[in-house]
Amino acid sequence: MFRHVRDLQFEAKPDGPDAAFARRLQEVLGGRWGEMTVANQYLFQGWNCRLPGKYRDLLLDVGTEEMGHVEMIVTMITRLLDSAPLSLSEGIADNPIAGAVYAGSNPAHFIHAGGGALPVDANGVPWSGAFITASGNLLADFQLNVTAEAQGRLQIARLFQMTDDPGVKQLLRFLLARDAVHQNMWLAAIEQLKEDGLEEMPVPEAFGDSGECADNPRAYAPEPVLPAGDPRLYGTSPDRWDDTVT
Amino acid sequence: MFRHVRDLQFEAKPDGPDAAFARRLQEVLGGRWGEMTVANQYLFQGWNCRLPGKYRDLLLDVGTEEMGHVEMIVTMITRLLDSAPLSLSEGIADNPIAGAVYAGSNPAHFIHAGGGALPVDANGVPWSGAFITASGNLLADFQLNVTAEAQGRLQIARLFQMTDDPGVKQLLRFLLARDAVHQNMWLAAIEQLKEDGLEEMPVPEAFGDSGECADNPRAYAPEPVLPAGDPRLYGTSPDRWDDTVT
Amino acid sequence: MFRHVRDLQFEAKPDGPDAAFARRLQEVLGGRWGEMTVANQYLFQGWNCRLPGKYRDLLLDVGTEEMGHVEMIVTMITRLLDSAPLSLSEGIADNPIAGAVYAGSNPAHFIHAGGGALPVDANGVPWSGAFITASGNLLADFQLNVTAEAQGRLQIARLFQMTDDPGVKQLLRFLLARDAVHQNMWLAAIEQLKEDGLEEMPVPEAFGDSGECADNPRAYAPEPVLPAGDPRLYGTSPDRWDDTVT
Amino acid sequence: MFRHVRDLQFEAKPDGPDAAFARRLQEVLGGRWGEMTVANQYLFQGWNCRLPGKYRDLLLDVGTEEMGHVEMIVTMITRLLDSAPLSLSEGIADNPIAGAVYAGSNPAHFIHAGGGALPVDANGVPWSGAFITASGNLLADFQLNVTAEAQGRLQIARLFQMTDDPGVKQLLRFLLARDAVHQNMWLAAIEQLKEDGLEEMPVPEAFGDSGECADNPRAYAPEPVLPAGDPRLYGTSPDRWDDTVT
Amino acid sequence: MFRHVRDLQFEAKPDGPDAAFARRLQEVLGGRWGEMTVANQYLFQGWNCRLPGKYRDLLLDVGTEEMGHVEMIVTMITRLLDSAPLSLSEGIADNPIAGAVYAGSNPAHFIHAGGGALPVDANGVPWSGAFITASGNLLADFQLNVTAEAQGRLQIARLFQMTDDPGVKQLLRFLLARDAVHQNMWLAAIEQLKEDGLEEMPVPEAFGDSGECADNPRAYAPEPVLPAGDPRLYGTSPDRWDDTVT
Amino acid sequence: MFRHVRDLQFEAKPDGPDAAFARRLQEVLGGRWGEMTVANQYLFQGWNCRLPGKYRDLLLDVGTEEMGHVEMIVTMITRLLDSAPLSLSEGIADNPIAGAVYAGSNPAHFIHAGGGALPVDANGVPWSGAFITASGNLLADFQLNVTAEAQGRLQIARLFQMTDDPGVKQLLRFLLARDAVHQNMWLAAIEQLKEDGLEEMPVPEAFGDSGECADNPRAYAPEPVLPAGDPRLYGTSPDRWDDTVT
Repeated sequence: MFRHVRDLQFEAKPDGPDAAFARRLQEVLGGRWGEMTVANQYLFQGWNCRLPGKYRDLLLDVGTEEMGHVEMIVTMITRLLDSAPLSLSEGIADNPIAGAVYAGSNPAHFIHAGGGALPVDANGVPWSGAFITASGNLLADFQLNVTAEAQGRLQIARLFQMTDDPGVKQLLRFLLARDAVHQNMWLAAIEQLKEDGLEEMPVPEAFGDSGECADNPRAYAPEPVLPAGDPRLYGTSPDRWDDTVT
Repeated sequence: MFRHVRDLQFEAKPDGPDAAFARRLQEVLGGRWGEMTVANQYLFQGWNCRLPGKYRDLLLDVGTEEMGHVEMIVTMITRLLDSAPLSLSEGIADNPIAGAVYAGSNPAHFIHAGGGALPVDANGVPWSGAFITASGNLLADFQLNVTAEAQGRLQIARLFQMTDDPGVKQLLRFLLARDAVHQNMWLAAIEQLKEDGLEEMPVPEAFGDSGECADNPRAYAPEPVLPAGDPRLYGTSPDRWDDTVT
Repeated sequence: MFRHVRDLQFEAKPDGPDAAFARRLQEVLGGRWGEMTVANQYLFQGWNCRLPGKYRDLLLDVGTEEMGHVEMIVTMITRLLDSAPLSLSEGIADNPIAGAVYAGSNPAHFIHAGGGALPVDANGVPWSGAFITASGNLLADFQLNVTAEAQGRLQIARLFQMTDDPGVKQLLRFLLARDAVHQNMWLAAIEQLKEDGLEEMPVPEAFGDSGECADNPRAYAPEPVLPAGDPRLYGTSPDRWDDTVT
Repeated sequence: MFRHVRDLQFEAKPDGPDAAFARRLQEVLGGRWGEMTVANQYLFQGWNCRLPGKYRDLLLDVGTEEMGHVEMIVTMITRLLDSAPLSLSEGIADNPIAGAVYAGSNPAHFIHAGGGALPVDANGVPWSGAFITASGNLLADFQLNVTAEAQGRLQIARLFQMTDDPGVKQLLRFLLARDAVHQNMWLAAIEQLKEDGLEEMPVPEAFGDSGECADNPRAYAPEPVLPAGDPRLYGTSPDRWDDTVT
Repeated sequence: MFRHVRDLQFEAKPDGPDAAFARRLQEVLGGRWGEMTVANQYLFQGWNCRLPGKYRDLLLDVGTEEMGHVEMIVTMITRLLDSAPLSLSEGIADNPIAGAVYAGSNPAHFIHAGGGALPVDANGVPWSGAFITASGNLLADFQLNVTAEAQGRLQIARLFQMTDDPGVKQLLRFLLARDAVHQNMWLAAIEQLKEDGLEEMPVPEAFGDSGECADNPRAYAPEPVLPAGDPRLYGTSPDRWDDTVT
Repeated sequence: MFRHVRDLQFEAKPDGPDAAFARRLQEVLGGRWGEMTVANQYLFQGWNCRLPGKYRDLLLDVGTEEMGHVEMIVTMITRLLDSAPLSLSEGIADNPIAGAVYAGSNPAHFIHAGGGALPVDANGVPWSGAFITASGNLLADFQLNVTAEAQGRLQIARLFQMTDDPGVKQLLRFLLARDAVHQNMWLAAIEQLKEDGLEEMPVPEAFGDSGECADNPRAYAPEPVLPAGDPRLYGTSPDRWDDTVT
C-alpha cells in the first residue's frame, strides 16, 4: 500500500502563467511516454513480478517516485493555466501573445477541468492503459524501461527549448536529471540480470535461437490460394466463379 | 420508436460566425459530459430498465429531449463555422481576430465535415460508448445522472463566459435552465426511489454493509510472494534465482 | 510525493486458480468504474483543488488508499492466473471446467502479460484517462464520487456472486465494506460543502437558476435553414438547386 | 426535436435466453456498422445538410427510424441475457451448453450493465464517434450509406445463421428487409442527385478530373533527402555525420 | 511480400515550411479516410479474398500503391515542419504569421516526433484499425472503396484550397488525379462483379429480399415489458415494487 | 514506393482449422507489439529520418520485411478460421473441442470479416497509431526497436506453446528466428551509432547530464498552495472559504 506525503519532491511553480505551454507540458504527463506511463508501467511490472527481492523492490520504488512526478507536473500545469484568456475578445484585446495563447491552448483545460490538469497528451487525447507493458520477462521489460526514460528525457529536453520561464525550466532540469539517473539504472539492471544468469539476449533466451535464418528476406512459399469459405458467411466465393473470365 | 419533429426546441442561431468557439462548443456535444452522453445514457437506462412504469418513462422522456439538444447544438455549431478563414494567408490578412480563429479552430470541421459539426469533443477526440453507464440499479444510475447534469451545466456556464455573441448566449441560457431542471428531477427521483422502498444508500442495499471497517486504512497482510509461474510463459522466474545474490 | 509500503492493506490470495474469473475481476481493476478510475480521479481532484485544507486532504488520502486497492486486485489476478490451460488440447483434456476456463479467459493475460494483470477491463479494453473527471467544482465532483463508489460496489457485489472461492470472497467483502465507507464519506462531504457555504445544487450555484423553464419540452423555434456554405468545401449546395424539383 | 413512442417497430422477444448470442448481436448494435452508426450518421448528415428539402428530410427520417432499431436490438439483447450462468460452477454443472454460454458471453453484460445491453461491439469495444461521417457532400455520403446498409445487412445475414431461435430469427428477418429497402433507397438517392445536377462522380465534380494520370503507378521523383532539422529537437542529425563511415 | 523502391511516386517538396498546414495535412495521412486507411483496407481485403485472380490482384496492387502515398505525405509533412516556431516568444516575435503557426500547429509533431510526421489525424488522434473493413463480400467492400476514394478526394480538394504553396498544390493535384482514377476503378469493378455473376444489390444477394416491407416505418409491437432479472445482479426490480405507487 | 510480390516469405498453412487459436494469433498481428506495430514503426522512423544513408536504409528495409510478416499472419489466421462452429448448437453438438472453439473464438472474425483476419489484438481491440514512435532520435528509437523485437519474440514463443499444429509451429519458428536476427540487428545498430559519434546514453547526449541528483528521491519543496482561480470557471474557491471551519 501507499502513503502520501504532502510535500513535493521538487518546486513546481512557474514565474508566470502560460496556458499554451501548459497544453504542451501535458505530453510528458499523459502522453505515450509521460509520467503516467512510467509510473503505472513500473508498478504493474513490480506487482506482477514473480521474483521476490531486489528487482521487484526497484520497480516498486521507481514507480512510486514517478507517481510523485505526476503530482509535480499536474501542479505545474494547474499554475500555468491561471489568468488565461477565456474568450476570443480577451485573446486579441491586449497583445499578440494573448491571441496566440488563446488559440494555442487546450479548451478542455477550462471547460472540463476548470483550470486544472487532465490525464491527456498535448493534443487532449486521453492516456491509455495500452501504453504500458509488464510482460513478466524482466529483460524485455527493462529494455522497454530504458527507452521509456530515453523518450521521456528527449521530450522534456524539447520542452526545455519551448519556454523562457525560469521556474518551469528549473522543474524540467530536475526531471531531466532524474530521467538520466533512471536510464542508467535500467541499463545497470540489464547487466545485473545477465550476471545473475536470469536472462540473455535475444529474449527469451530459453527459446533457443536457431540462427539459421538468412539476413536478407526472400520468398520461400508460393502465392497463397485460400479455400472457398463457409457459404453462410456470404463472402464472394470461387464456387460461383467462371474460370474463363479471369 | 421515435418520431422527428422538424421544429427545434429552441432557437440555435448565432449573431455571427466564430469557428474557434464552435470548436469549444463541441465539448458539450460530443465530450465526456456532452448531450450525446446524456441522451444515450438515459435511453439505455430506460431500455434496460426491468421496472415498468414511471422511472422507465422518465428515463425515455428525458433521453428523448436530450436528442433534441444534440440537434440544437449541431445546428448552432454548423452556423458558427460559416465564413471561417481556411488558409494561413486568410487567417492573418485582415485582422488579429482572423489569425486567432484560424489557429484556434478544429481543422476537421472543414476537412472532414465540410463546415459541419462532428461527434467529438473540444479537442476533436471522438465520443465513446464508454462514456455511458446503464447499470440496472436505478439509485446508482440516478446518482450518475445528477452529476452528469451538474458537470454538463458547469461546462455550459463556462462556455457562457467564453463568448460575447447574444444568440449563442441565449441558447446556452436555455440549456442551463434545462440542466437545472434535470438536476432537480434526478434528485427528486432518488428520494422517490427510497420512498418506494426500492433501494437505499450505500448501493446495493441488498448486500448488507458490514460496517466493521476502520476509517483509516492500514496494512492487514504481509508483502505478497508470488509462485514461480508457468515456464512456458518465459517469465523471469525464482527457479533460476541464486538466493545468495540478493 | 508517495511512499510505498510492502505490506498489503488486505490479504489477496485465492484458494485456487481460476483464469476465467481473473478476466472478470479485471472489470473492477481497469474498467470504467474500477480502482484505477477512483484512484486517479481522487488524486487529480486533490492536486487540482484550489482550496487548501480538509477537502484536498480527503481527496488525496482516499486516492492514495485506492492505489493500494489497485495493488491488491493486481496481486489477486496474478495468482488466479496460475496453472491455467494454455492450449485447446489442455483446455478439454481433463474435464469440462478446463474447457470453460480456456475459452472464457483473456488470452492477453498470457500472451502479453505472461500470467500477470493488465490495466484493462473484463473484455481486455484498456483503461482510459477519459474515465476520470476533476472539474474544479467540488460539489459536482463529490456527486461523481458517490456514484463511482456505488457503481464500483455494485460491480464487486456482482463479482461476489460469480465465484465460490473463499479467498476471493474474503477480499471482495473487504472491498465492499470500504466502498460502503467511501459512499457515506462522499455523501457527508457533500453536506459539509453546503454547510460551509461553498456550493449548492443545482451546480454551479453562482450561475442563478432562472427557473422559468417549463417542465415539458416543446418546440420554440422553426426548422433551421442553413446558409449555402463556402464553395471551397465542395459541399452539396442550394446554390445549384432547382427549386422546382423539390 | 424528437418524440418517443412506447410501442416497438417490431417484436423483439427471443424464444429462450442465450447470453453467448447476445454478445454476438452487439456487433449490429454498437459495432462499426451497427444501428448506432447508421442512426447517428444519417442524423448528423441531415442536421449538417445545407440543402433544405427532400434530401435533408430523407436523412432525418431514416436516421430516426434507425434509432428505433437501436431500441429493438437493445430490448432483444436484454431478454437474451436472462437466466445466464454467472459462475464457472453454474456454467458446467448441468450441461455443455451452459459451459459454452458461460465462456462465450460478455462478462460486462452482467458486471457493468446488470443484465442489459451496452453501446459496444461483439468484443465489448465501445462504439466510437469516429465510425460516422457527414462530409457535407451528399454524393460521397450516400455512397457511404449504401455500403453501411450493405455491410449491416451482411452482418445480420451472418447472425441469422448463428442462431436457431425463431423469435430472434424473426427480428433479424425484419431488419434484413429494412436494410434491403434502405440500400435501394440510397442508390435511388444517388441517381436523383445526379438528375438534379447536384453532383457527379468522381467526387467532388467541381474539382475537375485532369485525367492525365497513368493507370500504373511508377516513380516520378528521386529518393527524398531531408534537411538536418532544428538542433533543439535533439534528432540524429547529418551535421554530426562523418561521410566516410557511410 | 513487399519490396521498397527508394524513389518516390511523385515529388513531395513544399516551396516553404508551414507547420500549421502540416497539422491539417495529417488528416489525409492518418485520419478516418486517409492514405493509411485505404492502404490497409485494400491489403486486408486482398489477403482475406477467397477468390484467386483479378480482384485479389487489383486489391493488392492498389493497396501497395497507397503505401507509396503514405510515404509521400509523410515526407511532405516532415519538410513542412522545418523552421517552425517552437516557443511562444518565437511565435510572436517577428510577425503575425509566426503567431498563427505556433498556435495552430500540432505540438506532438515536435515533442513526440522531433519534427516528423505521425500516424494521427488533423487533431492528433491516432489512426485506428477500426477504420478499415474487409468483409469478405467484394460488392459490399467495393462500395466502401468507392466512398473511401470519394471522401479522400473531397478532403484533398479542401486542403488544396487551404494553402498557397505551389509545391504542396502540385502533390495534392497528383493525389486528386489518382483518387479520381481509383473511384472509377472501383465503380468499374462493381460492374465487373455483377457481370461475372458473383454478387448483386442488395447485398448479400444470396439472402433473398423478401420485399414485403412497407416504405414507412410504423409500430408493429407493443411496449416491451422485461422480466425481473437475476436478483444476484442487484438491479432495481419489479419484485419489490408496490403497484399502488405507480 | 513499394512493389508487391505474390509469393510469401514463408509457408503460412495450418494442418487444420482452429478459430480459438486464430483469435490468439491476432495479438502478434494487431496487438501492442504485433507485426503492424513494427512494420509501421520502422517505416515511419525511416521516412522521418533526417540522416541519409545506412540507418535510413536499414529502417526502410526491415519495415518492408515486416509488412510481409503482416501478410503471412493474416493468411494463416484466415486459414485457421475455416470450418469454425458458427452457432451454439454446432459448438456443442459433436465434441467438447467444438464447444471450446465456439466460446473461445472472436465473433467479429465471422460477423465483421466473414472468416478473415482483422487489424485487432487477441481481444478484438483495434490496432492504434499510438503504438508506434518515431522520435527523430535514432538511439532512443533503436532501444525501442530492441524491446519491440524482444516483446514480439516473447509473445510468439508463448503462442508456440499454445498450439499443437505443426504447420502453425513451423511459421512461428520462422518468425522467432527473424525476431532474434532483428534483436541483434538493432543492438548492433546501437553500437554503430555510438561508434559513429552520433549519440550516447543517456539520451539526448546533447543535453548534458548534470549528475547532481541524489539516488533516493526526497521532498525538496513544501505542500503546494494554489491560487483561487478565475471565478468564471465556477470552481470551488478559497475566496468563499471561512478559515474557522477548517
